[in-house]
Amino acid sequence: MQRYFVDKKCILNTSITLTNSDVYHMNNVMRMHTNDCVIISDNTQAYLAEITYIDNEKCTLFIKSLIEENKELHKKVTIAHGLVRKEKMEELIDYLSELGCTSYQSVIMEKSIVKITKDDFLKKLPRLEKISKEASEQSQRVTMMNVLPLITFNDLINSLNNFDCVCVCDTSNNDLKTINEIYLNDSFKNILFIIGPEAGFSKKELTEIYNHKVIGITLGSRILRTQVAPIYVMSVIGSLDK
Amino acid sequence: MQRYFVDKKCILNTSITLTNSDVYHMNNVMRMHTNDCVIISDNTQAYLAEITYIDNEKCTLFIKSLIEENKELHKKVTIAHGLVRKEKMEELIDYLSELGCTSYQSVIMEKSIVKITKDDFLKKLPRLEKISKEASEQSQRVTMMNVLPLITFNDLINSLNNFDCVCVCDTSNNDLKTINEIYLNDSFKNILFIIGPEAGFSKKELTEIYNHKVIGITLGSRILRTQVAPIYVMSVIGSLDK
Repeated sequence: MQRYFVDKKCILNTSITLTNSDVYHMNNVMRMHTNDCVIISDNTQAYLAEITYIDNEKCTLFIKSLIEENKELHKKVTIAHGLVRKEKMEELIDYLSELGCTSYQSVIMEKSIVKITKDDFLKKLPRLEKISKEASEQSQRVTMMNVLPLITFNDLINSLNNFDCVCVCDTSNNDLKTINEIYLNDSFKNILFIIGPEAGFSKKELTEIYNHKVIGITLGSRILRTQVAPIYVMSVIGSLDK
Repeated sequence: MQRYFVDKKCILNTSITLTNSDVYHMNNVMRMHTNDCVIISDNTQAYLAEITYIDNEKCTLFIKSLIEENKELHKKVTIAHGLVRKEKMEELIDYLSELGCTSYQSVIMEKSIVKITKDDFLKKLPRLEKISKEASEQSQRVTMMNVLPLITFNDLINSLNNFDCVCVCDTSNNDLKTINEIYLNDSFKNILFIIGPEAGFSKKELTEIYNHKVIGITLGSRILRTQVAPIYVMSVIGSLDK
């Protein structure tokens, strides 16, 4: 069944009123009518809802029931990723949303080839959020993946305390743990994975990361490119989540 | 170190002679000189080799040593995939090569949206093989992923005996095994995963598949699109391979 994420403000008791671009999609792309049912999620809870009125600008729905089934991962997983170019980022956001990732955080790193300011990134954010919304709807999630505004490497270091486990995907270190060891550890509920840009971390960045007691992890014996690594991490996590 | 796959015919005892497009890459892109070393793989074994002569058309090398390290998976894994459109297939071949996949097999299925004949696909094969070669070099593999010619669903069914385990990625069945259960079973050495096209398998195809005692497997609770599913399978396998 078709699924739409809506702002909590659109829901009043058992009644939902939509006036955004989803209405166009429902009316003109899906050709929905009164009495058709859809799944509506307010980003915390999903509902089965029946259309009571629809035209090109507005759709009202009636909540028939709560949907108990929840396809979210049991832990929060954030990917902090060295800034990659726009096309790769869009594709990644699409894939990571499907794979259940909680948040995607782009980080300006020393060897990032792409150059963009925080402000210019903010202008691109609505498009990235739209990709995340559509992929999250498609994969029947209850919660949309957050696409966070661009930060610097220092901002990232200052945010490490927000997580109860921080890992770095590293190839330079011999004492590496596996994703399994991290994800299956019951004391970790909110995990950050740091992944370098195309050219990798700088020495200074890696030193700084390890100074903060970050855990080095391996992504297996083959070298994965920066756009494949986050997908690998989320796929393995998907297979471990119980 | 830069790595190149070469035809076995180019190697005579300890001497390698290249005259293909890699020579241009070595001479003009990498700007290599006499005495520079590269890794050469003949698709079964990798060698450390030193350049003894190089110009725009020809490069000769001397094999200094065998490279013992082998980053291949310990089992053969083939992905049989409902035909997807060209851009998605190219990207997938790139990702699956990096993730250690043995062979990628496109299959014409009932609900395949893309229409192409076997002959037209054959014309595209050299480009797909080039993508696989470059991704396999990049990820330091010893063996290139095979991109196989397009086959029909019936051809696929007739080939199932070539594998000692055949799985189908299914969402319609309640009695599904996990990738872990399959891959960690020591009696399976040569495994086929069948993944449907965008619109999924037809009922007839699924019946036919299950008639052949194929094992249904789950890819987790979220619905993955057809271009994400093979990457998920190979990522999980990468994390299990020991």
